[in-house]
Amino acid sequence: MTTHTLFETLNPPQRLLMGPGPINAYPRVHQAISQSLIGQYDPVMTGYMTQVQSLYRGVFHTENQQTMLVDGTARSGIEAVLVSVLKPGDKVLIPIIGRFGHLLCEIAERVGAVVRTIEIEWGEVCPAELVEKEIKAFGPKLLATVQGDTSTTMNQPLKEFGELCQKYDVLFYCDATASIAGNELKVDEWHLDAVSAGLQKCLGGPSGSAPITLSDHCAEVINRRKHVEAGIKADHHQNGSDEIIRSNYFDLAMIMDYWGPERLNHHTEATSMLYAARECARLFLEEGADEVISRHKTAGDAMARGLQAMGLELFGNPNYKMNNVVGVYIPQQVDGDKVRQELLNSFGIEIGTSFGPLHGKIWRIGTMGYNARQEAVLTTLAALEAILVRNKAKIIQGQAVIAAMEYYA
Amino acid sequence: MTTHTLFETLNPPQRLLMGPGPINAYPRVHQAISQSLIGQYDPVMTGYMTQVQSLYRGVFHTENQQTMLVDGTARSGIEAVLVSVLKPGDKVLIPIIGRFGHLLCEIAERVGAVVRTIEIEWGEVCPAELVEKEIKAFGPKLLATVQGDTSTTMNQPLKEFGELCQKYDVLFYCDATASIAGNELKVDEWHLDAVSAGLQKCLGGPSGSAPITLSDHCAEVINRRKHVEAGIKADHHQNGSDEIIRSNYFDLAMIMDYWGPERLNHHTEATSMLYAARECARLFLEEGADEVISRHKTAGDAMARGLQAMGLELFGNPNYKMNNVVGVYIPQQVDGDKVRQELLNSFGIEIGTSFGPLHGKIWRIGTMGYNARQEAVLTTLAALEAILVRNKAKIIQGQAVIAAMEYYA
Repeated sequence: MTTHTLFETLNPPQRLLMGPGPINAYPRVHQAISQSLIGQYDPVMTGYMTQVQSLYRGVFHTENQQTMLVDGTARSGIEAVLVSVLKPGDKVLIPIIGRFGHLLCEIAERVGAVVRTIEIEWGEVCPAELVEKEIKAFGPKLLATVQGDTSTTMNQPLKEFGELCQKYDVLFYCDATASIAGNELKVDEWHLDAVSAGLQKCLGGPSGSAPITLSDHCAEVINRRKHVEAGIKADHHQNGSDEIIRSNYFDLAMIMDYWGPERLNHHTEATSMLYAARECARLFLEEGADEVISRHKTAGDAMARGLQAMGLELFGNPNYKMNNVVGVYIPQQVDGDKVRQELLNSFGIEIGTSFGPLHGKIWRIGTMGYNARQEAVLTTLAALEAILVRNKAKIIQGQAVIAAMEYYA
Repeated sequence: MTTHTLFETLNPPQRLLMGPGPINAYPRVHQAISQSLIGQYDPVMTGYMTQVQSLYRGVFHTENQQTMLVDGTARSGIEAVLVSVLKPGDKVLIPIIGRFGHLLCEIAERVGAVVRTIEIEWGEVCPAELVEKEIKAFGPKLLATVQGDTSTTMNQPLKEFGELCQKYDVLFYCDATASIAGNELKVDEWHLDAVSAGLQKCLGGPSGSAPITLSDHCAEVINRRKHVEAGIKADHHQNGSDEIIRSNYFDLAMIMDYWGPERLNHHTEATSMLYAARECARLFLEEGADEVISRHKTAGDAMARGLQAMGLELFGNPNYKMNNVVGVYIPQQVDGDKVRQELLNSFGIEIGTSFGPLHGKIWRIGTMGYNARQEAVLTTLAALEAILVRNKAKIIQGQAVIAAMEYYA
């Protein structure tokens, strides 16, 4: 047979990941993910699954029974919610504050929903009045929004949206991938019916697992569409009265049965990723939700102060900035991608480029999870300053680290 | 805030997983999965992605450019292929030899395809003549089949199906999750247009990543449905002429662009799972495809001989048995689940129960990946014999291990 190149033993370089995510995982998450595998119906495994449900109730600030993982990246959690809740023809209202709002529209359209959007200028958030007006005019089944949109670094306030959804009997879903664990998120208090997330931002894990939570009401809406797979049980379960969900993999009615006491077989749970997700949640709850969020705010503010002390201008409305990422205008004298490359090649530090209308205009610098700490902030500022000076950018020298240290002090 | 239970530090027991999968991962896969994370557009990361494509071409025995990972469990790979290839109304022919054939139908129906099935008695495979007859009568766009269906332990021959698909101009897809790396699979030689797999069987990794490969023709069919996401690029790419794919997450046209030289952002690649997938493929190619498959055949045959030497009866047509799993009738004197539980609790050994019509009738015992080796086979036989004797099953004692050892010798 043909000889195939085997390539070298895996040996990734040590990077300091200060972009909009993914970021470096907590060391304990690396330990957890490498643990021995066990069978999917081993009582230890089902025990871990139940623990993960409990732990993520803590992360989401919710009492929702239906709290679990979808086996895929953060984006899989979004699609699981939208395809399970929205039947073809159902109406969904989507405020768009950045790229990931467009993603919600795109997914909703593909599942056959009728989408109405509220497009907000990049760098701002959507006022609740606009949402109320559109709810009244459009009468959606679902309001779907992104909380923290890393493309613009804006954090959409959700409390008033939740109140409107209560008032007008609209289901309320939020993609909290980039905001969770770095910014306040109170699922029950804010009347959210569905939230999806990912590990690779402030939760400090690898991409590949999507924690989600569903209110009892939302779970009931989804369960009306339940159809148990042929070939699993000799005697079929009762199926729901509503139209079947268009996806098998993302059928949350079946996924709830897999995680629930029935433990009806669906996919084969991704054990290693579940180990990682479990450890991310334990780290968050052990440190304490308020403490973790405050650590993100401090790190993010220190980074912002440092950048401003260099004379750089920040992007977006500062009143709504996410704690865990900042957008900063690329100085006119330099090539943004060249600076990023030099940072990566000389310091092993990664910062982010940007999408769409902001491409080539701003960098995005994150301070998330394990990297929401002083050393990471100071190292990034010192390195960025050095590379900017080397590239003859007109910046103020020697002040960035001092400003960040003073903020920390 | 509320205090949440943090549960204990992750410390899964050492199990010997001898069921139909998931199984124990190779030690090197555990090392790989715990390596440091890097950014998704880091040249090292995109380099690893390209290496993974090359490595899986080796695993799949193909020259297909479009060879990559879908970020989810094996089932996600199936849905990605079916939703990307099949437009609503497209016709698909599915021979069903077990539970996972039903799964293909279920997924195909949910994506809106018109499904015709050929139902085969569990324990047999589908003859090519039946497929030819149905292709002529039905004129499908796609023939979709499972290669190794662990629910029945049967391995469907594919070569003649491939010839028929060539002859009648039908696309040919196969789910090789349970068979790959343990049974012969020659994608190009057998004219397969699409194959999906998973790591958690004979490839010896954790569940959560789905390697797939697509022929040029299949990629072209999918690319006709390409629609680039809004918000990614200022200047939109050219979209395909065909109906948009109903899923964003499983849109293989976009996933090909993410893995291809364009590197257009889609999901955030699950880095740790990619590390695992890379190592699984390296292990397979390093040992050699023929050697790995032969090791699976030896271990599977030794297990079967041992079970027969105990006086137990095997399930299914022996001419088509998968190398890596055997079905064995539960002796009438014992409670099958009680025996499995005692094996797990006293020996830490897991063997499998079964689904649907076989539930309560047979156990399924796997010899896959890292566990396709003599110690694992002998330990399982010795332990099972001891527990059966303890449960007063009427079996032949003292012969199982000898028979397996003799086979190995």
